Amino acid sequence: MAGRNHLYVPGPTNIPTEIMNAMNVDMEDHRSPIFPNLVKPLLQDLKKIFRTETGQAFIFPATGTAGWEIALTNMLNPGDKVLIYRFGQFGHLWMQMAKRLGLDVECHEIEWGKGIPVDDLEARLKADTDHQIKAVLATHNETATGVTSDIAGTRKAMDAAKHPALLFVDGVSSIASIDFRMDEWGIDAAISGSQKGFMLPAGGAFLAFSQKALKAAETATFPRCFLDLQDHITTNKDGYTPYTPSTPILHGLRKSLDILLAEGMENVYARHHRLAEGTRRAIAAWGLKLCAHPGFESDTVSAVVVPADKDARDVISTAFNKYNISLGGGLSEVAGKVFRIGHMGNMNDVSMLGAIAGVEMALLDNGIDITPGAGVAAAIEYYRSTAL
Amino acid sequence: MAGRNHLYVPGPTNIPTEIMNAMNVDMEDHRSPIFPNLVKPLLQDLKKIFRTETGQAFIFPATGTAGWEIALTNMLNPGDKVLIYRFGQFGHLWMQMAKRLGLDVECHEIEWGKGIPVDDLEARLKADTDHQIKAVLATHNETATGVTSDIAGTRKAMDAAKHPALLFVDGVSSIASIDFRMDEWGIDAAISGSQKGFMLPAGGAFLAFSQKALKAAETATFPRCFLDLQDHITTNKDGYTPYTPSTPILHGLRKSLDILLAEGMENVYARHHRLAEGTRRAIAAWGLKLCAHPGFESDTVSAVVVPADKDARDVISTAFNKYNISLGGGLSEVAGKVFRIGHMGNMNDVSMLGAIAGVEMALLDNGIDITPGAGVAAAIEYYRSTAL
Amino acid sequence: MAGRNHLYVPGPTNIPTEIMNAMNVDMEDHRSPIFPNLVKPLLQDLKKIFRTETGQAFIFPATGTAGWEIALTNMLNPGDKVLIYRFGQFGHLWMQMAKRLGLDVECHEIEWGKGIPVDDLEARLKADTDHQIKAVLATHNETATGVTSDIAGTRKAMDAAKHPALLFVDGVSSIASIDFRMDEWGIDAAISGSQKGFMLPAGGAFLAFSQKALKAAETATFPRCFLDLQDHITTNKDGYTPYTPSTPILHGLRKSLDILLAEGMENVYARHHRLAEGTRRAIAAWGLKLCAHPGFESDTVSAVVVPADKDARDVISTAFNKYNISLGGGLSEVAGKVFRIGHMGNMNDVSMLGAIAGVEMALLDNGIDITPGAGVAAAIEYYRSTAL
Amino acid sequence: MAGRNHLYVPGPTNIPTEIMNAMNVDMEDHRSPIFPNLVKPLLQDLKKIFRTETGQAFIFPATGTAGWEIALTNMLNPGDKVLIYRFGQFGHLWMQMAKRLGLDVECHEIEWGKGIPVDDLEARLKADTDHQIKAVLATHNETATGVTSDIAGTRKAMDAAKHPALLFVDGVSSIASIDFRMDEWGIDAAISGSQKGFMLPAGGAFLAFSQKALKAAETATFPRCFLDLQDHITTNKDGYTPYTPSTPILHGLRKSLDILLAEGMENVYARHHRLAEGTRRAIAAWGLKLCAHPGFESDTVSAVVVPADKDARDVISTAFNKYNISLGGGLSEVAGKVFRIGHMGNMNDVSMLGAIAGVEMALLDNGIDITPGAGVAAAIEYYRSTAL
Repeated sequence: MAGRNHLYVPGPTNIPTEIMNAMNVDMEDHRSPIFPNLVKPLLQDLKKIFRTETGQAFIFPATGTAGWEIALTNMLNPGDKVLIYRFGQFGHLWMQMAKRLGLDVECHEIEWGKGIPVDDLEARLKADTDHQIKAVLATHNETATGVTSDIAGTRKAMDAAKHPALLFVDGVSSIASIDFRMDEWGIDAAISGSQKGFMLPAGGAFLAFSQKALKAAETATFPRCFLDLQDHITTNKDGYTPYTPSTPILHGLRKSLDILLAEGMENVYARHHRLAEGTRRAIAAWGLKLCAHPGFESDTVSAVVVPADKDARDVISTAFNKYNISLGGGLSEVAGKVFRIGHMGNMNDVSMLGAIAGVEMALLDNGIDITPGAGVAAAIEYYRSTAL
Repeated sequence: MAGRNHLYVPGPTNIPTEIMNAMNVDMEDHRSPIFPNLVKPLLQDLKKIFRTETGQAFIFPATGTAGWEIALTNMLNPGDKVLIYRFGQFGHLWMQMAKRLGLDVECHEIEWGKGIPVDDLEARLKADTDHQIKAVLATHNETATGVTSDIAGTRKAMDAAKHPALLFVDGVSSIASIDFRMDEWGIDAAISGSQKGFMLPAGGAFLAFSQKALKAAETATFPRCFLDLQDHITTNKDGYTPYTPSTPILHGLRKSLDILLAEGMENVYARHHRLAEGTRRAIAAWGLKLCAHPGFESDTVSAVVVPADKDARDVISTAFNKYNISLGGGLSEVAGKVFRIGHMGNMNDVSMLGAIAGVEMALLDNGIDITPGAGVAAAIEYYRSTAL
Repeated sequence: MAGRNHLYVPGPTNIPTEIMNAMNVDMEDHRSPIFPNLVKPLLQDLKKIFRTETGQAFIFPATGTAGWEIALTNMLNPGDKVLIYRFGQFGHLWMQMAKRLGLDVECHEIEWGKGIPVDDLEARLKADTDHQIKAVLATHNETATGVTSDIAGTRKAMDAAKHPALLFVDGVSSIASIDFRMDEWGIDAAISGSQKGFMLPAGGAFLAFSQKALKAAETATFPRCFLDLQDHITTNKDGYTPYTPSTPILHGLRKSLDILLAEGMENVYARHHRLAEGTRRAIAAWGLKLCAHPGFESDTVSAVVVPADKDARDVISTAFNKYNISLGGGLSEVAGKVFRIGHMGNMNDVSMLGAIAGVEMALLDNGIDITPGAGVAAAIEYYRSTAL
Repeated sequence: MAGRNHLYVPGPTNIPTEIMNAMNVDMEDHRSPIFPNLVKPLLQDLKKIFRTETGQAFIFPATGTAGWEIALTNMLNPGDKVLIYRFGQFGHLWMQMAKRLGLDVECHEIEWGKGIPVDDLEARLKADTDHQIKAVLATHNETATGVTSDIAGTRKAMDAAKHPALLFVDGVSSIASIDFRMDEWGIDAAISGSQKGFMLPAGGAFLAFSQKALKAAETATFPRCFLDLQDHITTNKDGYTPYTPSTPILHGLRKSLDILLAEGMENVYARHHRLAEGTRRAIAAWGLKLCAHPGFESDTVSAVVVPADKDARDVISTAFNKYNISLGGGLSEVAGKVFRIGHMGNMNDVSMLGAIAGVEMALLDNGIDITPGAGVAAAIEYYRSTAL
């Protein structure tokens, strides 16, 4: 099929050519005296993306899934109680992981489409008078439903309850894309991955931990080695790594950080919001609804609900096979009900308009009653009036 | 500015990643015993793109402009009369080149927007009873106006006039994109460049000459060396080149030929036609006109006329500066009057819809009265109904 | 410093340009219907490198260190006794990992420079009449000392003792480089990484397990998720992965497997042996000794002992800072005593001669009494007489 | 054949990875308003490589051969007398070009191995009392014989003769590698190509002309277009080009200039001299002679004479087929008599030692009586004692 694949899955995201080139490096000795010149600034600058000055950043040659496990096994102990609200596939998987690892998981079901209920959280934490709950696990941006939770509010609820639990935040699809403030929001474990807002391939788990979390890590008893934090702390200090790092990921991250920090994180957030809002205008113009309830809309991915008599998988299949567009599918409880449009990373107005126009074709082909061009027209008006 | 530049100039065209990678080669000895294993099949397979079995193909480390000069200086002699119809900037430049080289140029002015008037040509050639005209210079696809001329008809006119002039065809923006049949149409010199349908960077002039042209080359007296054909004939025979070749261009061309021939030239032409037609539907839906008169529409580039009270340069500037889309500008006589949308090379439906949507924004921003989404809607309907 | 860095560390190894290009891919949807077309053949062809037909291969987006842990935590249970011989830094680290994970480690110290004592092993296993030992951990190629152990002999010893323990083999620096026969040698867990014989960057743990090992995995109780095998088994069946894979590593592996299998594994082994033997001839000509005792010499890396009054770190530092050659350092017990020359992966005669000549300079600069050119002369004679 | 090809032809030279990556660019609109931001500084910085402040630099999408022709056809007129000394294949080719273009060529034969005889030149120019000679054509570095001529002396001879002829210098294999001073030496046309000291692929002709030469260009009557200077002058002024440029070459040149200027041209020259001298020490230690006579040795390429009863082609063939080393062959009069080792561009000590060791093998294989390791030993001693 001629022409490029148009990739709008919510990760991996499109990689800018300059990052691609930055990864195209000759292999090198990761024990050389000059290697720390690469590693040390990376770890410092990574903190600026997480918006932390007091925390410490880490890079693992692994994925976001490993990031979840690093937080759980390094800061907690077997049998510890953790609190999680389940409202999407990625929260579900993190919850399942916690169970499999032998944690005592208290999981509250929330309608898919909503996020963390901060009032409920406050009440629950107040009720936990003997502080059995050791950690709150929060999915900042639930990729499966296109839902963003209120992490500032989550912290406020914890503070209101005067609860000492650690706050773990899955920021895989939020960090480097939407507003994230580790220090200000009192986050203890911030977890991200390379293949989303960082615009890199998968293969890097990027993390930051608060001093409180690092303190807890000193006495954590989960058996672990590859995902152990202490080995990184020991070697990172001198600019090295506990085992062979992926140097393409490191060099690519250098370029990614340079690009993000040059733009400025507030501008990065604003850009993602604007692209997302244009997409939402298109969806509304189609007469379709987001999976996300009002107030929970994500700026990195929109999950669009198809009419009840249609299967979203058909839309996705048409988009891919007939038009070479890759959309995200509905996962688990929303399989067949939603398709997802990623608007994360190296995107701009015309990228999104291509997606919107392509989706229009796939919707029409599948008998979904929309006015051709209506979505594009709505997005165009928004983009035109808000372009810098 | 975040996100990729969306490139819709009519060359250089977007390069597929696999061609980009094919060019990323270690340098090599172009005099090695294995180098002919690269060169010989290239020269053979290139003939399949030109659709010639009896002609001979050539690769120069230069550009299409050099290709024009190679044809003129290797097949003609100073003072020879050549006939050309001028109906666009690239035809104009070729005509000017012929003059500067000392040829006796008979140039007929044709309204920009039309192509070669084959009836007129037949009449003119019949009038040239002593065969003063040594060559007819035909711009197959005039990139500046988005006009495709009838080369089969040109040959028919020459045959009807029983005129022995050579037929030189500038196919820079047609070969490897739209229907081109060197042998069937009796073309003596076919000229192309790497940065259009071949989906390579500029830096390769790809040519094919008929046996009749090669015969003429044997006695041509223009002083020339770098652009001399004979040096290539002598060295190509054994798979070598007369001077250092650009090996990235050669390896990229290998991949380009593999891609084009695997798709099949008829399919390549059909694909370009379909993408072009969708674009034209959008332009019509905007209520705008092509520069090309009916019957002359190009399948590689559409030149769109803006309303008389508007300056097309403003549209192009808005598109570039506000939306990161690169459109082609109007050149010379049509400067300010047209903007051009390339639909050549590594494109597909969503690529074109992105262009159309982006252009809609730029048109609206400049006060051109179109219905937002109208162009996209028209293109969508066409693409949906014609997709394979 | 002008010119390329000459990399002779025993991993990461030099990456061929064609593998580098194969990794330079646009991001793609790893849940697309065509993604299994990439994954399934990879997992099948990977088995050919491990030389197993009955086992199953796995790819983790992690490193060889993770590979060690995958074997230990998926096939064993907390408190299980494992037997290991410690004769180098990488065996040491694996042993330490086993201890940290809560296994009951029986570690026998072996002089660094020797490998697994197969007679001793047989005796020890015979003495373990109630089969307390659940697994034998064997470092096939100890990178730190340049020692290759006899895995066929290890299996023979286990069979002679009629002992049912699993045989885990660290083949990180042997697989895809030196003779390795998973099925024939009755290996239950074969562990490798991308950045050695596979000529890829770090970031891929490549593994194969026997049916016996996979059976044990069904009931293993170690808490684990990211490194869990079952999630891979479940998803790999259909050509997918349990979490986002590193697609550059997958595409690079495709090219790596194509190259290795086209050469043929026996030829790959012979090539490594020949390059290693030439290097050893040079070392002998210098009057220096290998760390490896006779019979244990590795074909992927040579650890060279410097005279007792010298510090190998100075040689390495000179080589790097003055001549831009990267050599491997001595680790742990042999720090300062040895430097290491890797001859693994994308190497040939001239690569090794460059290394040898460069090392000669660094040796001379540090007052080590060798005859200039002597090492090169010895290697030259060997390479000349054995070249195909 | 495993491992990389070791490339020691005197061009194309090895490309540093960072330059390779710099060329891996998305296509762009060369008529965009930001394109001059690339072109203008390139043309300015290029002058620093040519060491001219008063001259003007040019970039053609062509090769060094075109560069020769550009100088001849833009500054001279048909029938003009030019003076050239022929002492190698590249000077021969330039002389032939001059003849073919219709210039009146006065060619003096000089023994191959020597360079321009400056005393003879002075005498000849003094004898040309009516200044019939319009240009002296000087091959600065004759690649075929490894001979560097004295351009400062050439200028001195011209001045002593008070002769107004233009001084054209072929610096294809000298500029950006060995001492070159356009202004100081009064050079009127300096010609170079991308694939030598600039460490780029072929495809760029880089030139600089004095004001005197540019004045001559205004009235030059050779028919020319693609190679016409005036079209470049007109468009370069605003940062554009007269026809589609090769943007990979432009971006690669940007990186090349950055690297060269950061090192400093004096350091670049010193580095080339040092690598060359080490190679010459090796050649002397083999008991072989350079083609270049004393005082004419080139710092970019050494042409080595094989014993009279041997054929250098066999050495080259063995090197390539058995050891994957690419050496330069003898051309024309010295075919079979010499092989050539390039030491130009992205090289360092270990690169050259690999070449020397590899050549030793090929010499021995062909029965040439050298002491194995002797060449390497001599080079080692030189490199060790002169390393910074």
